[in-house]
Amino acid sequence: MADLRDHGDPGDAPSIPPPTAPVSDATRPSAAEEARTIAASTNTATLATLTSDGDPWASFVTYGLHEGAPVLCVSNLAEHGRNLAGDQRASIAIVAPETPDDPLASGRITLAGVAVRPTGAALDAARQAHLDAVPAAKYYIDYSDFTLWVLDVQRVRWVGGYGRMDSTTGAQYTAAAPDPVAPHSAGAIAHLNADHADALTAMARALGGYPDATAATCTGADRYGLDLRVDTPRGIAYTRAGYLKPIDGIGELRAAAVELTRRAQRG
Amino acid sequence: MADLRDHGDPGDAPSIPPPTAPVSDATRPSAAEEARTIAASTNTATLATLTSDGDPWASFVTYGLHEGAPVLCVSNLAEHGRNLAGDQRASIAIVAPETPDDPLASGRITLAGVAVRPTGAALDAARQAHLDAVPAAKYYIDYSDFTLWVLDVQRVRWVGGYGRMDSTTGAQYTAAAPDPVAPHSAGAIAHLNADHADALTAMARALGGYPDATAATCTGADRYGLDLRVDTPRGIAYTRAGYLKPIDGIGELRAAAVELTRRAQRG
Repeated sequence: MADLRDHGDPGDAPSIPPPTAPVSDATRPSAAEEARTIAASTNTATLATLTSDGDPWASFVTYGLHEGAPVLCVSNLAEHGRNLAGDQRASIAIVAPETPDDPLASGRITLAGVAVRPTGAALDAARQAHLDAVPAAKYYIDYSDFTLWVLDVQRVRWVGGYGRMDSTTGAQYTAAAPDPVAPHSAGAIAHLNADHADALTAMARALGGYPDATAATCTGADRYGLDLRVDTPRGIAYTRAGYLKPIDGIGELRAAAVELTRRAQRG
Repeated sequence: MADLRDHGDPGDAPSIPPPTAPVSDATRPSAAEEARTIAASTNTATLATLTSDGDPWASFVTYGLHEGAPVLCVSNLAEHGRNLAGDQRASIAIVAPETPDDPLASGRITLAGVAVRPTGAALDAARQAHLDAVPAAKYYIDYSDFTLWVLDVQRVRWVGGYGRMDSTTGAQYTAAAPDPVAPHSAGAIAHLNADHADALTAMARALGGYPDATAATCTGADRYGLDLRVDTPRGIAYTRAGYLKPIDGIGELRAAAVELTRRAQRG
């Protein structure tokens, strides 16, 4: 996964102090994993289709997921329904529902590919996936003029916020799993910040590459570790504290944080 | 403005009882006014552009408005920036930020047209419009590789929720004004529902065409009147109570509601 700023810095943006010691394990979720997590985080998105003139048409949609593939239920009479009937090329943009003050700090993805009409068992699975995500669809999913479309994802763009972005393939996206920890971590993060500030600072110093940390705040938790925002005399920095091995659910986060604290205090 | 259900009803959806008396004034905001109101309600949207292969590409953007035209500030290195440089056809989908339980009840619009790079005074106005809506853009708006694009809106699709939708032209959209009342009406609506339930019921009976109303709730207020949800022995219905003349701001809503109440009780 590349951490890139994809624009030219005019030189007046705040600079971020680099680590002055090795980061013990900076493993983060892959772009494919991040994308699967964002896709699983909501049930609304914007679809881009092509009009009969080949113009791009953006429209609000609801979706469910079947093995990571967005399942749409659209009216054949609506513009996007007519568009899909004419040309199956499509992409879908999904924004993670957290709303930071700065909207460009939001995580978001574009999934691009071709919409297909499932049949047989695939149709049943798609129908159920849509209903699971959009309960109100029961009122129209069987209307004669609504069609289920599954987006066969061929290309994925993920933006995690400023400076975190990458592309991946549909195959990698499909093979990845949504993060089992991040969507459930808000309470644990609040607890770490409220009651374990010293442990977080120790992690930033001993494991995160910032021996000059004066304070640290946990800003995220996922299957691989904790995101830390670090105060240093040189400015504010961002780093990771990685668990010894990935965890499979929120129930394992407490033990993983205790283990991180022990390693940090030993260091 | 057309009130259409644009799909075939399989016959098992709940039916809505029709009014049994004339509705005194059912004037609602036009599709162009509704669209301007939704456009003015937020600063994030999804842009649809065309890749070099002509595929549709959906991507998250922030925007400001200059005389109703979305002003985007996008990196030339990002996929949507490269797309716009190659083909200026674009559309933008905007969803009103209220989040009803059923996402398809959300108001949303698609504005379609051609993206243009403003110059001279238009560039200054566009830059300021973007900064007014997206303060954080000050950190990158002057980066050498960011470009301001203004969407010249040619075609508009508005969906107000189930059964309320219409299309309009770019010219009508541009000439319309956002509603001066609706975005500020939540407190007044809560007050009407909490303290003036009898007056609302009287409005539904005398002005809204439902003499058999047993209760009524205000679900919206705009420059032309109040939206009412009406309980009747025949089921739940939706109607309007229209002011004698349009109002220009939330400060006039109280007097307009008093006048509606007087007319209803006189009726």
